[in-house]
Amino acid sequence: MTPEIVVDHREKAHALLNADAEKILRLIRVQMDNLTMPQCPLYEEVLDTQMFGLSREIDFAVRLGLIEEQFGKNLLNRLEKELSALHEAFTKK
Amino acid sequence: MTPEIVVDHREKAHALLNADAEKILRLIRVQMDNLTMPQCPLYEEVLDTQMFGLSREIDFAVRLGLIEEQFGKNLLNRLEKELSALHEAFTKK
Repeated sequence: MTPEIVVDHREKAHALLNADAEKILRLIRVQMDNLTMPQCPLYEEVLDTQMFGLSREIDFAVRLGLIEEQFGKNLLNRLEKELSALHEAFTKK
Repeated sequence: MTPEIVVDHREKAHALLNADAEKILRLIRVQMDNLTMPQCPLYEEVLDTQMFGLSREIDFAVRLGLIEEQFGKNLLNRLEKELSALHEAFTKK
């Protein structure tokens, strides 16, 4: 009963959000590889801005009915864990 | 040929984005009615954050194929014009 094209919007929303989370991780890794300190206020600001942007996209996708609220929460939680692991690895260097 | 439910996602995306733009305008009007000065850095920050959030939603909707890029641009332009009219009206008070 579910038209193909609807499934496509849902799948695309999930794929885009996962890709955006991955992009944030990559950005932070690049900053660390280039030795931009996590204590730097600019680092915090970039990260906050990116996380806010992603959370707005997630919220929008939930309101559109394209993703479950829980998927969004899990994505943000996982990203935060990965970021804090990166942060920890960096400060221990 | 276009399934109802797809049209619904598109319509919903447009409606949500229009509503979010309207919410920003309302927020700014409330700030002005309560005499929070537009020169206040907090005002600028709130506005910047809200505009960034909306532009991320718009970008996401474009990438999902739910809205045309031009619709997003028009929405942001119109909002910016309305905001600057509000701002002008306020500073002339």
